[in-house]
Amino acid sequence: MFEKIALVGIGLIGSSIALSVRQQGLARHIAISTRKAPTLAEAEALRLGDSYTLSAAEAVRDADLVVLCTPVGAYEAVMAEIAPALKRGAILSDVGSVKQYALDVIQPLLPEGVHFVPGHPLAGTEYSGPSAGFAALFRGRWCILTPGTDADAQAVRMLTGFWEALGSSVEVMDAPHHDLVLAITSHVPHLIAYNIVGTVDDLANDTKSEVIKFSASGFRDFTRIAASDPVMWRDVFLTNRDAVLEMLGRFLVDLDVLHAAVRDGDGPALEALFTRTRAIRRSIIDAGQETAAADFGRVGSPQDQARTGAE
Amino acid sequence: MFEKIALVGIGLIGSSIALSVRQQGLARHIAISTRKAPTLAEAEALRLGDSYTLSAAEAVRDADLVVLCTPVGAYEAVMAEIAPALKRGAILSDVGSVKQYALDVIQPLLPEGVHFVPGHPLAGTEYSGPSAGFAALFRGRWCILTPGTDADAQAVRMLTGFWEALGSSVEVMDAPHHDLVLAITSHVPHLIAYNIVGTVDDLANDTKSEVIKFSASGFRDFTRIAASDPVMWRDVFLTNRDAVLEMLGRFLVDLDVLHAAVRDGDGPALEALFTRTRAIRRSIIDAGQETAAADFGRVGSPQDQARTGAE
Repeated sequence: MFEKIALVGIGLIGSSIALSVRQQGLARHIAISTRKAPTLAEAEALRLGDSYTLSAAEAVRDADLVVLCTPVGAYEAVMAEIAPALKRGAILSDVGSVKQYALDVIQPLLPEGVHFVPGHPLAGTEYSGPSAGFAALFRGRWCILTPGTDADAQAVRMLTGFWEALGSSVEVMDAPHHDLVLAITSHVPHLIAYNIVGTVDDLANDTKSEVIKFSASGFRDFTRIAASDPVMWRDVFLTNRDAVLEMLGRFLVDLDVLHAAVRDGDGPALEALFTRTRAIRRSIIDAGQETAAADFGRVGSPQDQARTGAE
Repeated sequence: MFEKIALVGIGLIGSSIALSVRQQGLARHIAISTRKAPTLAEAEALRLGDSYTLSAAEAVRDADLVVLCTPVGAYEAVMAEIAPALKRGAILSDVGSVKQYALDVIQPLLPEGVHFVPGHPLAGTEYSGPSAGFAALFRGRWCILTPGTDADAQAVRMLTGFWEALGSSVEVMDAPHHDLVLAITSHVPHLIAYNIVGTVDDLANDTKSEVIKFSASGFRDFTRIAASDPVMWRDVFLTNRDAVLEMLGRFLVDLDVLHAAVRDGDGPALEALFTRTRAIRRSIIDAGQETAAADFGRVGSPQDQARTGAE
């Protein structure tokens, strides 16, 4: 599909792309670059690519497809470095969680004849780094592309085919809408999860250790969300501020109402909300975004092993 | 271990106790009662017990161990019904998520010679009803007992042995402390999850359908938490109000700070919090309350099947 693919940044997403490109035979050469020498050495030890360099400019030279896999906050610096080295006719894309910012920063720095098509694979785990990647990460997942109004149609088609070859379904939408939808599906939930884990971290030590000891469904699930990459998430909140603040504002208004219902002991209001929210869960399962399997007893846990052994 | 066990209420927890008691041979007779005829018929069709009745008083007659498995809000009515029928020397327990309220409501209605020992198994799934139960639900999980200061030591020992036979580790603590720890590990997280799912439910229809379609890690996980039983959770917030309001207050103070950090684009503050929260996650995994397995790609999902097939 491509002669040479360059991956700038080789964390969870970059390494998963590398492994999947190799598995699917989508490129003759995979060039990998990252800013930190130990990370580069790790990528090389994992044999993720064909060439390894600390220079992003060197990695992108002659590449037909360049994918930025760094935190969003690094885009400006990366572009300053690679712009002069990008091949005419190359497709440039990224995997960042915020798309209007990506357009705003990258478009003005784009050399003539290079086609920028922003992308966002809705896939990940709570782990990060080159060793966290696996080839099947994108299978059965969505990848959203947010090309600008004057984007090259052929480049959009090529990139669509690329993500489909990685196993994803591709949806095209405009960047501001992407950022709003992701603010509520992903960014605000992460903010809240980080917040409650921080609240626990501030408790007195004896209570905190009991919270950890008796961490049951609820808090335990929040900690998984709050274990995601700190720099990546810092950049999400720095670059999608308006959409996050809008959705957080709605959340807070609703929480005021719920807070009052708890304070006033308003049983009917509580039960009505808790009943209504079940329908959304059902819709998500029906949409194929989630399994219906009871998950509180975690696969691999002693509970799960006991259950598997018992049946 | 017991001649006759009576389960009042036969939802997820009650049915799991029934199945596990049978599997472990802990009682000669399991009596099941519930308020609703269709639920009782379902329990009978599932062969969960040895006798089935709509009368809780009839179920508890001659029972050595009676376990209340109804929502907490039903305790007062249930006690009024069963108190005259409880056998002298019987142990009475429950499985509710709020313990001081259980003591306050049940203790005054307790007949002479009946030993009340409140209990709370920290186990569950997001499903409810008699068909949701399974024998291994309690294996490898905690069960917290909160006996009053004048509780019968022999009854506490018997009940400890019972939960250990179901596979749980037992911890004894005082009821107010239990309620505070659970407020932050479980009750406030559920409140927040219900709230954010409600916020999405209020979005305009086109945005809402996209949120469902692109529901990724974060929101998706909140919906699972918010799929739990509405009546059970209504009662939790009605009966553990003070502890929930205290922990919610702390959460809201912290959220104000985080809100301001997002609004002001304070990158260092965001990164510092997001880094700090990772340590808590690690502690929970070390405490055996959670597996380290990357879970965002859900077992049984197309992604998971692809991965399993690929490796």
